[in-house]
Amino acid sequence: MSGRPLDVLEESLNEPVTVHLKDGMAYHGTLAGYDQHMNVVLEGRLDVDGEGDALGELDVEAVEDTTIIRGDNVVTIKA
Amino acid sequence: MSGRPLDVLEESLNEPVTVHLKDGMAYHGTLAGYDQHMNVVLEGRLDVDGEGDALGELDVEAVEDTTIIRGDNVVTIKA
Amino acid sequence: MSGRPLDVLEESLNEPVTVHLKDGMAYHGTLAGYDQHMNVVLEGRLDVDGEGDALGELDVEAVEDTTIIRGDNVVTIKA
Amino acid sequence: MSGRPLDVLEESLNEPVTVHLKDGMAYHGTLAGYDQHMNVVLEGRLDVDGEGDALGELDVEAVEDTTIIRGDNVVTIKA
Amino acid sequence: MSGRPLDVLEESLNEPVTVHLKDGMAYHGTLAGYDQHMNVVLEGRLDVDGEGDALGELDVEAVEDTTIIRGDNVVTIKA
Amino acid sequence: MSGRPLDVLEESLNEPVTVHLKDGMAYHGTLAGYDQHMNVVLEGRLDVDGEGDALGELDVEAVEDTTIIRGDNVVTIKA
Amino acid sequence: MSGRPLDVLEESLNEPVTVHLKDGMAYHGTLAGYDQHMNVVLEGRLDVDGEGDALGELDVEAVEDTTIIRGDNVVTIKA
Repeated sequence: MSGRPLDVLEESLNEPVTVHLKDGMAYHGTLAGYDQHMNVVLEGRLDVDGEGDALGELDVEAVEDTTIIRGDNVVTIKA
Repeated sequence: MSGRPLDVLEESLNEPVTVHLKDGMAYHGTLAGYDQHMNVVLEGRLDVDGEGDALGELDVEAVEDTTIIRGDNVVTIKA
Repeated sequence: MSGRPLDVLEESLNEPVTVHLKDGMAYHGTLAGYDQHMNVVLEGRLDVDGEGDALGELDVEAVEDTTIIRGDNVVTIKA
Repeated sequence: MSGRPLDVLEESLNEPVTVHLKDGMAYHGTLAGYDQHMNVVLEGRLDVDGEGDALGELDVEAVEDTTIIRGDNVVTIKA
Repeated sequence: MSGRPLDVLEESLNEPVTVHLKDGMAYHGTLAGYDQHMNVVLEGRLDVDGEGDALGELDVEAVEDTTIIRGDNVVTIKA
Repeated sequence: MSGRPLDVLEESLNEPVTVHLKDGMAYHGTLAGYDQHMNVVLEGRLDVDGEGDALGELDVEAVEDTTIIRGDNVVTIKA
Repeated sequence: MSGRPLDVLEESLNEPVTVHLKDGMAYHGTLAGYDQHMNVVLEGRLDVDGEGDALGELDVEAVEDTTIIRGDNVVTIKA
């Protein structure tokens, strides 16, 4: 899973990701969409066994609803 | 309700959404319009039964008038 | 009064609006003009009976002179 | 003196204006020029009788020299 | 390893880099990709012998997963 | 010396200017160049008799070397 | 060594420069490259005799490795 940033997002569709924002918050969910500004759409995860280790971190919120995150808030996206 | 960020906004027209801003405030209302900058238009909701759970959160304001939110303030839009 | 953000501004021409800015200030006046950056022009209102409820809010200033507000300061415009 | 923001600036050429900036400062002078970014040029006023009421405000500085203000600092321009 | 900034990134592909961000954090990993906005992709390093001196610095985090860093957070990238 | 902002910069070439920045600092020197972003080049002044009154201000630094100032830091340029 | 900002950078290639950033830090090194955004590449200097006076300043760091600085952090570049 390597390559240019948008290639990595494309490969991560329907996979769990953790998005860290400039305000210190982070969101964990399934990557449902993105665009060239790194605006992303996260959805709640149905499977919470095993991979959700980021949820143990401080200030990581598991999304429940469909959540659009505006790209200019993003610091990192961990696939 | 998945796909690219603007697709999600298109599907959310006339539906209730909660918009969280960089200043910590959030607005809850019916999505009446949007554009490619994520500028959005919210209107007051006529139906307040059942779905308004976000209103229990801190600093979530139910809009009363037609309210334009400039996109560069947006952190998340929850559909 | 719904639709895309600039459509709402077009429909609000010559109507009273309240513009909330990122610095916490707000300006109340008649919308005399706007452009695609959400730069807006407010003018003093001749009629102050009835609709000026926003004036009771903290830090809302009724404009007296023709006032241009640069769009990148805007958080919300309430029609 | 109404219309789109740049129209108002065009009509205000050679007229006194007060420019409020994001850092809390304000400058008062004759509008000598502007461009599409709302960069403006102020010049010292020869006539200081009557209209200079803004000068009584806190942190309003009457310009003496030709002063270019970069547009991204501007909050409001009062004509 | 000199030249224009994007040339340096191109030459640094598959090499270890340290990316310092505006929030004071830094990430150390193998450069897996980049684009013209200086969005970068880092991956965990398999070889941690010898070159990882940056890891002794304060607030430098060795990435474990594939990590996209949005370019507007970047201060420096040290190859 | 009036007109559009870039016209004023063109007329100020080889003349002393004072550039005030968003961080509160100011630089005084001879304007050696500029571009459309208001990036400017200042050089040390050979003549320091008479016009250097700005140097008496707080936090105004007379440049010694050729100094490029990136335009997005600029608040005002006084010709 | 005068002219437009990018001309000054072109003339400064392979010469020592000091880059001051918005976070208060500064980097001193040989200018190995730049682009139109004022992203710059600095390299460690082999010659440290004589010209390195900036190194006596507070918070000026002499670069050791090839260092890309993203242009939007730059306040000044002193040639």
